[in-house]
Amino acid sequence: MGLLFFLFLATTISDGSPAKETIPGDKVLLLGPGTGPGVDRAPGLSCLSWRLAVETNNIIDWNTVPGQCEDYIGYYMLGQQYRKDSAMVTNQALLHAQSLTVGRDGKDVWVFDIDETSLSNSPYYASQGFGAEPYDATSFNKWVLEAKAPALPESLKLYQKLLSLGIKVVFLTGRPEDQRNVTSSNLRLVGYHTWEKLILKQTSYSGETAVAYKSSERGKLVKSGYRIVGNIGDQWSDLLGTNPGNRTFKLPDPMYYIG
Amino acid sequence: MGLLFFLFLATTISDGSPAKETIPGDKVLLLGPGTGPGVDRAPGLSCLSWRLAVETNNIIDWNTVPGQCEDYIGYYMLGQQYRKDSAMVTNQALLHAQSLTVGRDGKDVWVFDIDETSLSNSPYYASQGFGAEPYDATSFNKWVLEAKAPALPESLKLYQKLLSLGIKVVFLTGRPEDQRNVTSSNLRLVGYHTWEKLILKQTSYSGETAVAYKSSERGKLVKSGYRIVGNIGDQWSDLLGTNPGNRTFKLPDPMYYIG
Repeated sequence: MGLLFFLFLATTISDGSPAKETIPGDKVLLLGPGTGPGVDRAPGLSCLSWRLAVETNNIIDWNTVPGQCEDYIGYYMLGQQYRKDSAMVTNQALLHAQSLTVGRDGKDVWVFDIDETSLSNSPYYASQGFGAEPYDATSFNKWVLEAKAPALPESLKLYQKLLSLGIKVVFLTGRPEDQRNVTSSNLRLVGYHTWEKLILKQTSYSGETAVAYKSSERGKLVKSGYRIVGNIGDQWSDLLGTNPGNRTFKLPDPMYYIG
Repeated sequence: MGLLFFLFLATTISDGSPAKETIPGDKVLLLGPGTGPGVDRAPGLSCLSWRLAVETNNIIDWNTVPGQCEDYIGYYMLGQQYRKDSAMVTNQALLHAQSLTVGRDGKDVWVFDIDETSLSNSPYYASQGFGAEPYDATSFNKWVLEAKAPALPESLKLYQKLLSLGIKVVFLTGRPEDQRNVTSSNLRLVGYHTWEKLILKQTSYSGETAVAYKSSERGKLVKSGYRIVGNIGDQWSDLLGTNPGNRTFKLPDPMYYIG
């Protein structure tokens, strides 16, 4: 599936039905053979159960979306349910932020992951079977260098409201340091106009897990006197480990897993 | 809704459709006013998003199921999706167990929570709007004392397979110590015939959170030389805190929250 398919879906799947993903008779429900390469095909697998188990961290260390769930995940990502699920999370995040007493010292920060949290790579993943095809670093990095990832609308709204509450934003991403310029350009282009820090992964962390890298960088923040009042990401590896923050918020992402 | 309604649903909602909960035209989808007492009615609330946010620990410290989601949760709990979601989790748990090298010293244990993990209180909650009505300790304890809670079938299968792998089971529950006899009777009656320990909450823990109580008891297990190779529960408070176990597994429970 290419970008054309993405645009087709984006145009047609927007009737606001919360159940679009599971309408009987819809090809999504049939869960027929996907078009991705050879992945495990568990007969009778419920894609809804698979997605829930992924989001709750019960299924870990997975490589690709099961072939028969490719269409299901595609509809989910491009339809209304992904947006609604994201809004439910960012609304909770905002309620938490509004309950805080923000310090006058400017040391209250909220940690944002970038990919599938601040920026959406759905246009790219539409060409990759929405995660049904194995991760391809070459084509993904090419997409990143184009700097045209759209904002996740619910996350951008949260970002704006946090700033208005006096909370500063720290971006903490697994993107490598050599993608700093293109990342900051992309962020600014879609509305993330300011930040306290933009932390990218140094080569010194190569071979370390995402949990170890992100815990270490959050530890540095805390050591510098920052208070991490919130932390939002699409991967559990953004939210587990040490110094996770006062509260963590898990956005949906059924397309890929980072441990 | 009473037990009659429970039996009605249990009889009729079993066609195996993974999408039963969200079939258009179904009253579940209409999300009309529930029959529970006054709870927040967010217009346009997606019950699917609410459930996902609860399961991912994004919505915490909640008291009752939103009124407009009462029917949705009832269908979910009594239909096939809850069973499928549970099976997805216990299958992952079994895969983890099968990957372990079990010690010959008999010190490998798996921690099981009881309510909504080993035993199901759905017959009781059917009379409580499936969590849409506020928690009523009197009627719940009356139900517990009847000792007729059915097993959660997927959990019972996991239990049997763990035993056959040589892993011992420790039940760790928030039920109070004075419910020991009725709890062990109920467990045995539905097929949980043996256990290494059955840990109930001592009055000394009163006022402590579930996370503190369960962490403390798990700490005692570890101090006694047990290795907690797995831990399964329906609440995040079963799985967070210290000594959670090598891996944790979160079963679904959209009916109530224990912090």
